Amino acid sequence: MDISTPTLLLDEEKCRRNLQFMQAKARRHQLRFRPHFKTHQSHAVGRWFREAGVDAIAVSSLRMAEYFAADGWRDILVAFPLNIRELDRVRSLAARTDLQLTVENLPALQALDEALDQPAGIFIKADTGYHRTGLAPGQFAVIDGLLDFIDQAAMLQFRGFLAHAGHTYGAREKAEISEIHHSSLRAFQLFRERYQSRYPDLILSMGDTPSASTMDDFPGVDELRPGNFIFYDLTQAQIGSCELEDIAVAMACPLVALHPDRNEAVLYGGAVHFSKDYLETARGKTFGKVVELTENGWRIPDFEAHIVRLSQEHGIVRGPASWLETLQIGELIGVLPVHSCLTADILKEYHTLTGEPIRMMPL
Amino acid sequence: MDISTPTLLLDEEKCRRNLQFMQAKARRHQLRFRPHFKTHQSHAVGRWFREAGVDAIAVSSLRMAEYFAADGWRDILVAFPLNIRELDRVRSLAARTDLQLTVENLPALQALDEALDQPAGIFIKADTGYHRTGLAPGQFAVIDGLLDFIDQAAMLQFRGFLAHAGHTYGAREKAEISEIHHSSLRAFQLFRERYQSRYPDLILSMGDTPSASTMDDFPGVDELRPGNFIFYDLTQAQIGSCELEDIAVAMACPLVALHPDRNEAVLYGGAVHFSKDYLETARGKTFGKVVELTENGWRIPDFEAHIVRLSQEHGIVRGPASWLETLQIGELIGVLPVHSCLTADILKEYHTLTGEPIRMMPL
Repeated sequence: MDISTPTLLLDEEKCRRNLQFMQAKARRHQLRFRPHFKTHQSHAVGRWFREAGVDAIAVSSLRMAEYFAADGWRDILVAFPLNIRELDRVRSLAARTDLQLTVENLPALQALDEALDQPAGIFIKADTGYHRTGLAPGQFAVIDGLLDFIDQAAMLQFRGFLAHAGHTYGAREKAEISEIHHSSLRAFQLFRERYQSRYPDLILSMGDTPSASTMDDFPGVDELRPGNFIFYDLTQAQIGSCELEDIAVAMACPLVALHPDRNEAVLYGGAVHFSKDYLETARGKTFGKVVELTENGWRIPDFEAHIVRLSQEHGIVRGPASWLETLQIGELIGVLPVHSCLTADILKEYHTLTGEPIRMMPL
Repeated sequence: MDISTPTLLLDEEKCRRNLQFMQAKARRHQLRFRPHFKTHQSHAVGRWFREAGVDAIAVSSLRMAEYFAADGWRDILVAFPLNIRELDRVRSLAARTDLQLTVENLPALQALDEALDQPAGIFIKADTGYHRTGLAPGQFAVIDGLLDFIDQAAMLQFRGFLAHAGHTYGAREKAEISEIHHSSLRAFQLFRERYQSRYPDLILSMGDTPSASTMDDFPGVDELRPGNFIFYDLTQAQIGSCELEDIAVAMACPLVALHPDRNEAVLYGGAVHFSKDYLETARGKTFGKVVELTENGWRIPDFEAHIVRLSQEHGIVRGPASWLETLQIGELIGVLPVHSCLTADILKEYHTLTGEPIRMMPL
């Protein structure tokens, strides 16, 4: 491959397979499929979704909403608590898309209502156990206040509740995901029980890749909103959301040094390429798992070699002597990333397996 | 301040003070000052160095060398093991700068010699105890081989040895830095003892911000090459390299949610802004320390509030109730970053305290 610096390879076939899998699951459970585009952040990958019939998306910033609106997406949910310092962008987006916003407090709703001259859909962020943000069932009185405000506001249209059971990322086996998933959905159902009669069209939207990938019952849910599944990564493989073979991105990093005395090699590929996210494994921390680059992609090897330390530009790989002694200075080493969302976000570009660049949202 | 999204503020006065401090120390010890520009990655900040009389720099990639060469820098050391997949760039840079490269193996030297049609300076990477890469005193036979090759190569000019005692970053007090520093310099001296007579102009170059900031003896060293000191950060403050008041960058993040029931607030500012680097403290992990934004910068508060969790776009801050109850949705919260190099690298732009943007090296 004609690659000279750390480069993120993207396997289109695996992406499309991951997409089909998730879309089929959503269909099977009669869930509206609203994939989160924060992972790939790319018009080109977005079009693979559109070709598959997807017409509704979630994004994590207004800038990302603008970026996808520019490629023709209309039904866009910003799945991040409204930032009232960006109301100009909100107003402009509401004029040209079916914009839906996430809100969880009255000051944001008030500022939004004052700013809008076109209607926007409103999801209230529900805390179903992750405790990152949102309102829990114990705070229904607060939610009632928000709904009263929305109901009398001319430009605000209540759509439903948004949950993200992000604590599934801490799970290490399917049983644990299942426990979190079902406890999260039980909490979510309390929202329906309280508000269904007042809002018969109420939408309950949920989305975390571990639950969406591994679970096969979504009682009471209307909409599925996972993002990472399009690429997956080592974290998802460790959780059990995917197999290593499903991971659709790999870094290609030039080998710059060999230290066989300590079973280590040095890659050009550091924290400014991978991010500093890591996994704890039985062998210690990993910042990425080595794969074998092939003519048309990469292959999971029958040995374990990992990035065990990262500095700004260096990745220190440790692997078996039998593998290290086959390596040549200057060759490309493939590495599956720990967290594909962050790696992609840093690099802002992919290369297909045939060497074409795929651009992402620019800075 | 007219800021709507997570923005990295840069205090020019603190930068210039940090620069003066380090430059004065280099002068006092008769060390050539070759600051590493990987932290700020900015023409504008580079010019502050030039105004102070600096004329030699280190960078961590060939792209960075090109970027600073374009702003008139001539004496440029690439302090990263030569990546032989970028020899086109090397050749072009060697034609227009006093380019110095870091090498630690024969295949790289051979490929380089074949590629060059203009001379380049060569530093051999010395491992003085960090064990990231480089050759240790026990590998003098390997070094002899490299030097024999360099001596007969028309385009390669041996300049000296390069050390980076990066294990000072693991130190938590000055005594520990001192121990690492002196042990590293003792190892470094073995290189001088062996090669000084063969190369009377031999340069020993070292540079890690903890040693450069806190130590006051540099026996046998010729050149000082720290980078992070221009900004410092929470990591350096924890190590003892600086005071919190010396940190020259702070993020300004919009507040999007308040959760007084658990003494938390949610910032628009996550892993795609800060990086996932963290510090272990007595209170647990911190991904950033809250400061009070003022009219002309920021102030270290008399309370402790920290980012305790980070996801892609969310930063979860925990702080005292007395502070949280003063906050308004939409206001800007100042945060000192854990690792300023990574935060700057992600954001690719600063704002001065008067609101002007300062661009960094583009992608």
